[in-house]
Amino acid sequence: MENHFTDRMNQDRAEIEHYLTCAFAAEPRYARLQDAMEYSLLAGGKRIRPILVLETCRLCGGDIQAALPFAGAVEMIHTYSLIHDDLPAMDNDDLRRGRPTNHVVYGEATAILAGDALLTAAFEQLTKAELPAEQIVEAVRCLSQLAGSAGMVGGQALDMAGESRTLSREELELLQRLKTGALISASAELGCIAAGGSFEQRAQVRTYAQALGQAFQIRDDMLDVISSREELGKPVGSDQAKDKSTFASALGLETCAVLVEQLTRHGIEALKDFEDAGFHIWLAKSLAQRIR
Amino acid sequence: MENHFTDRMNQDRAEIEHYLTCAFAAEPRYARLQDAMEYSLLAGGKRIRPILVLETCRLCGGDIQAALPFAGAVEMIHTYSLIHDDLPAMDNDDLRRGRPTNHVVYGEATAILAGDALLTAAFEQLTKAELPAEQIVEAVRCLSQLAGSAGMVGGQALDMAGESRTLSREELELLQRLKTGALISASAELGCIAAGGSFEQRAQVRTYAQALGQAFQIRDDMLDVISSREELGKPVGSDQAKDKSTFASALGLETCAVLVEQLTRHGIEALKDFEDAGFHIWLAKSLAQRIR
Repeated sequence: MENHFTDRMNQDRAEIEHYLTCAFAAEPRYARLQDAMEYSLLAGGKRIRPILVLETCRLCGGDIQAALPFAGAVEMIHTYSLIHDDLPAMDNDDLRRGRPTNHVVYGEATAILAGDALLTAAFEQLTKAELPAEQIVEAVRCLSQLAGSAGMVGGQALDMAGESRTLSREELELLQRLKTGALISASAELGCIAAGGSFEQRAQVRTYAQALGQAFQIRDDMLDVISSREELGKPVGSDQAKDKSTFASALGLETCAVLVEQLTRHGIEALKDFEDAGFHIWLAKSLAQRIR
Repeated sequence: MENHFTDRMNQDRAEIEHYLTCAFAAEPRYARLQDAMEYSLLAGGKRIRPILVLETCRLCGGDIQAALPFAGAVEMIHTYSLIHDDLPAMDNDDLRRGRPTNHVVYGEATAILAGDALLTAAFEQLTKAELPAEQIVEAVRCLSQLAGSAGMVGGQALDMAGESRTLSREELELLQRLKTGALISASAELGCIAAGGSFEQRAQVRTYAQALGQAFQIRDDMLDVISSREELGKPVGSDQAKDKSTFASALGLETCAVLVEQLTRHGIEALKDFEDAGFHIWLAKSLAQRIR
């Protein structure tokens, strides 16, 4: 079973890599800008978000081919946010997934523009889906709301503002819900929209994704403390070094572990009405237990 | 007649200001981020692009109320591009319309995020239009293509790359067509889309807007040379000071003046099939002759 889901995830990931590789091939663009966009977009990574788009589309009875442009859009939003977050004025990170960050390679100006271009291209991808216009408009609405100032960008702004002081658990939860949770929710919701899912289904996959996202972030904070530099491709305890508030520092590792388990159970429970939520259950458990 | 069109423009502008003022009022957002977004969005300016959206909607037989969200979207794209262009890593400008630039007031991190949030919000606005879903999808497609790496952002990347050397007239024209022309075209096309205009109408307003955009840019370059600091709210000859190639430096003021006149005529000619293109004709002439 484990192998079956791993195979499916690898197959989804291959579809997504192919989609992203071809996304900017058709039209001539200014070469250096396109290089910078693809340097970060095609840098690997787990592709959890776009996989969640495809698999949630399947969960809600849709065809994953129709959802590919939505999956590509989510990964472009995620990638642009990493490029901008790494900038000297923001987190000032030189390494990402073991490689020099975008601005280190291409310079700050091009990195800012590559992020802007990927963010804009995400919305272009949505229009490429071979789906009824109503569903595409709903996707644009969903993604723009969850990725913008009331979602992901708002979370990043809160994160910047909170860097120099200790955040309460409530503040941390809000920050996480916006900064990483919103785009994970968007991923599941876009999958449901692509499938033409019902209002109830959308609420259920949203609950699942929100729990998954929170568990993912808490696990991430735990790993930042316990992993070695080689495993993560970034300095151990880089959050600590910056005096960043994290769930690990606010609650301790043991409480974090309990929370991750509770959230995972809660997320899985939300999918009980679906006939075959096997992949989503496996995914939630795998992420909760991951060691990198 | 002159007064009639000025009145209409002022009325359009008032509608747009109202729309933009209310755009972020409904949902609570992180206050400092919203402040930064509105600092630049509500900083006045000519609002040429959103006015062009509304008036082109009217030209193609549509109701300008339906086009207001499209107009708001275009102005948000324009505003985000100014915020990012002014950043230290880009043009490094401290003043814009006589006021300190966004990053001077809010810091670089918040300025980058305010730009990202406005760019994202632009696509959210498009979904707010009370129009058939097909027209909204077409608007998303149009705006994302013309504002992204094959349009406005691509032009800004070319501009950055060309800063330290002298550009040929052809290079300058390509740069302008992307950097400023694309969004002006998008404005006219979005107006036509909002009105449910025909394919032919869309091609005609695009031709008009491209000519208008090029004339606008050439006139801008001329004014950069001949205006005084007080009039423009930025240092005289700031392009020259940065060794930037401009139409004025490449062609000289006299040739520029001839070109502006030719382009204006060409743009007006493209609208000959419309029953009442009076406003567009007046606008093209006014912009060509403007002294600030």
